[in-house]
Formats: sequence, C-alpha cells, structure tokens
Amino acid sequence: MTAPRMNREELERFLAAEFPQAFHPGSGLSIEDVGFGTCLVRQAYDDKFIRPGGTISGPTMMMLADFALYVAVLSAIGPVPLAVTINLNINFLRRPDRRDILAAARIMKLGKRLAVMDVHLFSDGSDEPIAHVTSTYSIPPEGR
Amino acid sequence: MTAPRMNREELERFLAAEFPQAFHPGSGLSIEDVGFGTCLVRQAYDDKFIRPGGTISGPTMMMLADFALYVAVLSAIGPVPLAVTINLNINFLRRPDRRDILAAARIMKLGKRLAVMDVHLFSDGSDEPIAHVTSTYSIPPEGR
Amino acid sequence: MTAPRMNREELERFLAAEFPQAFHPGSGLSIEDVGFGTCLVRQAYDDKFIRPGGTISGPTMMMLADFALYVAVLSAIGPVPLAVTINLNINFLRRPDRRDILAAARIMKLGKRLAVMDVHLFSDGSDEPIAHVTSTYSIPPEGR
Amino acid sequence: MTAPRMNREELERFLAAEFPQAFHPGSGLSIEDVGFGTCLVRQAYDDKFIRPGGTISGPTMMMLADFALYVAVLSAIGPVPLAVTINLNINFLRRPDRRDILAAARIMKLGKRLAVMDVHLFSDGSDEPIAHVTSTYSIPPEGR
Repeated sequence: MTAPRMNREELERFLAAEFPQAFHPGSGLSIEDVGFGTCLVRQAYDDKFIRPGGTISGPTMMMLADFALYVAVLSAIGPVPLAVTINLNINFLRRPDRRDILAAARIMKLGKRLAVMDVHLFSDGSDEPIAHVTSTYSIPPEGR
Repeated sequence: MTAPRMNREELERFLAAEFPQAFHPGSGLSIEDVGFGTCLVRQAYDDKFIRPGGTISGPTMMMLADFALYVAVLSAIGPVPLAVTINLNINFLRRPDRRDILAAARIMKLGKRLAVMDVHLFSDGSDEPIAHVTSTYSIPPEGR
Repeated sequence: MTAPRMNREELERFLAAEFPQAFHPGSGLSIEDVGFGTCLVRQAYDDKFIRPGGTISGPTMMMLADFALYVAVLSAIGPVPLAVTINLNINFLRRPDRRDILAAARIMKLGKRLAVMDVHLFSDGSDEPIAHVTSTYSIPPEGR
Repeated sequence: MTAPRMNREELERFLAAEFPQAFHPGSGLSIEDVGFGTCLVRQAYDDKFIRPGGTISGPTMMMLADFALYVAVLSAIGPVPLAVTINLNINFLRRPDRRDILAAARIMKLGKRLAVMDVHLFSDGSDEPIAHVTSTYSIPPEGR
C-alpha cells in the first residue's frame, strides 16, 4: 500500500483554495475517503439536480465524476493544478434515486504523461452502479 | 431538406416547461438555430465557469453538449420527454476563451430505438473546436 | 449466483457454427471460463500480431475484446445471433508482452434492450491490465 | 493549405517497410488520398470479413479505422514509427454492404504531445456513414 500524496484534509484545503467555484460549502461535494490513486467522493442531493421523470440529470453525474477524477489524480501526483482532462466517456446504467450520489474513482494506469482512470457512481445505499466513467488526464512535465 | 419537428420557439417553450431547472432565464442557455436533427446552441459566459489558469470548466462544456444533444433529438422526434442518454464521450481539444460557448450538434444516425450524434464546441468568434462530443440516445417506443 | 444461459461447450459449439470466420481451430481464440454475464477468454500469441517496437497491435486487442463481449452477452441472453455492438471504447494502458492475451468481460447492466459491459485485457501471467474496454450492445426484442 | 509531410508513395513505402504484417499486398488496404492531417483509405472487400446476417464484422471496421488514423498522423508529423494510440471510440451506425469500405480521417487537434482525430467509415458508393470513430494518439517527444 502506497500512502496518498495528499490526505483528505490536504485535498479539501487545496480544492477550496484552487477551485472555489466548484468546491465550496454550498456545493454539496465532500471527500469520503482517499488512497493512493483512489477516492470515494459524495454529492449531496439537491432538488435542482432533478429532471423530468424524477431522475437526477446527466450533467450532475458528469460533474461528480469529474470531481472524483481530479481528486484521484491529486492523490497520486500531489498538488498540481494544471493536470487536465483529455477525454471522458460516461455510460449511464440505471436511473439514480433521489438521494446522494457516491463516486468511487481509481487510477488504472499512471504514466509519466498520462493517467487513465475509471469511476463507478452509485446512489447512496445501493451496490448497483448508476453510471460508469473512463477518463484520461494529461500530467504536466513538472507534475511528476 | 426535412423541416424540424419543433422550431425554435416550440423548443424553447417545451424546454422551459419540462426542464425548468436547466433551461431558465438565468441559465444563459439559448437556441440560435435548429434544423431537422441539427442545432446550434449557446452558453453565455459567466465567471462561475472559470477554473484555475483562467479556463472554462469541463463540466460547463459537458452540460452545454448535453443540452445541444437533447435539442437535436427533439428537433427530429418531437416533444418526447423520455429520450435518455445512453452514453457520452467528450474529447477536450483546446483551451476555451473567456467568452460564450457555441455548440453545433447533428444526428449521424436516427434509428427506431437509437440516435447517434456528435457535437462540436467553439469559443464564440473562433472556428477551431474546443471540444468534440459523440453520444447515443435511447428513444422510447412511443417516441417515433 | 445465476448459472450462465450457455456453458463453455455450448458457447464453443454455437460460435464455431455461427462465426466460423472468427472462431475456428486456427484462430487461437478459446474460452477459459464463463459465468452469467461474465467470461474469461484467451487469444494465443502469434507473430502476425506484432507491430514495430515488438508490441502486439491495437486491432488484435480490439478483436479479442469484441469476442469477449459477445461471449459475455451470450452467457446472459442465450444463443441470439443478432445482438449487435452499438459502440466500443478502448483505452490502451500498457505495452503487451509477446505472450497470450487474456480478456475478462462482465456485464455492468443488462436491460431489456441494451447491455453495457466492460473488459480488462492482460498479458498472460500479469495482473496489470494492458487495455480496458467499455461497450454497449443492442439486444433484439426476441432476445429476451 | 499545408502540404502533407509524406505523400501517398512515401506513406506506402514507409508502411510496407514498418508494418509488413498489416500493410502487405494481400491485405486489401490502400491509400486513396492524403493531405496534411487527412486521408482517405480503402479496405477491399473479402468474404472473411462477413458475420452472421451477412454483415461485415466490427473488428474489420476497427482495423481500417486504426489504419486511417495512423496514416493521418504520419501525414502531419512525418515518419515517426512510435506514435501510439491512447484510446479509440467507435460508434456503429449502419449495416455495411458487402463491398469495399472507405475511411476518411482528419486531425481535429494536433498538439505537441497529442493528436485527436475522427474517422467516418462508408460502404463504397454510399454517403451515409456506417461507423464513426474518435481517437487520441500520443506523439513521442522526438516526433515533432
């Protein structure tokens, strides 16, 4: 087991300083757990996420996956604000419940220039994924 | 040329009624143009979209692409609120400017049960795409 | 545990009858294990797969993933020759060795009309994936 | 208009020397046209590509797309054998006919370290795409 480069408190402090538009007290985002190249993050439920038919919107899930991916990258390479997403592929699997959403991210490959990851999203309390994401990040040369 | 099933005014009315959380006067979203299976939509610039380094966030682009895809589907199958995204793949190509973003969507294949589309995103005033999206929608049986 | 709809022998017989161009004695393809919605399949090494730098070609990996996906679908819905791939997304993670390749597929979501799956590919003898695939299949109405 | 770094004859000579397993007289692959970052390539029809129902197999289309992507990269960066595919996403749109397949590739973004491309595939004689591919290549540092 490799320890993460940043623990939960360090990640929260870094994100609040660097990403105040996305990660702020009213965002409903929180970090539940973090390892080296892995994390579990949460989006608290909010009525504004709802779409016709009572389902949580796709962009809400994409935003949470994006957050999980960034936390997983930081946990493995440390506080590098310039890591950027190259691409993101999401498959929507099941209708989410009207509840919090959890996202479990892991790095599948950490290279010098690229990190490839996936994320499983769940409605809180359920084991069946509501969405699955794969994504590649570009890591700046000074990032390793 | 096939005429769209819903014109711009009909689309705006439908979206305001069915998707008030996403499409409302303060959202900055607008429909510039619509054809059968094609559309051009706009996200007005807002400081809240900015991320470190002065770039517009990935989720902002994904949200706009999601909106463009839905408008393109409606333009081809009419007011069917239950068409759902099966998957979405985004490639980020260039740093967006601090300006409005335009999204041009087209249906590549409209089948009985599925629609496959792509979207090019641009910073307003530029011809070089900042992102490219492909996506598949599932069309409910009553949708055709 | 749900039993697979077709066991290994039934799958091999079905594939040899329906897909003789792809699954024949000289193809090097074999089924190692099968469950309900899961399988492990193998591509025997062949010099013709090699590309410059001594690596196994991308299309070889895509072909094996395609085979694994089809076996996983059959294991869950039975002998339906007309299930078709809607899309396939592959991330190449590591250089494969000059050895057999194994592919482990699982269904993440089995719906009435769609199956969403992923596949991890490995060089024989290694635990680190060389590629990861996600894919969606369309299931014909008579398929369930 | 920028001229391609390698013209058709140079590309064919390079590919025959570097990729003899994939590009050889019996492969049925040919280059129809090439520009800077664009190309049109052909896969001659062969009965071995056929699957149940009389359709051309998915791996045949993926292989041709992979070939088109590589030719497009070479046309823009020159004879760099070590450019590698990071990922490839294919959407299958229509049943191909029992005919040659054409693939039109273009680079959407050529960066220092990455190239992002798409490919439209067609049955010879038709204007409606049978498949659409997006893909990212990693370009080695010495490649520019």
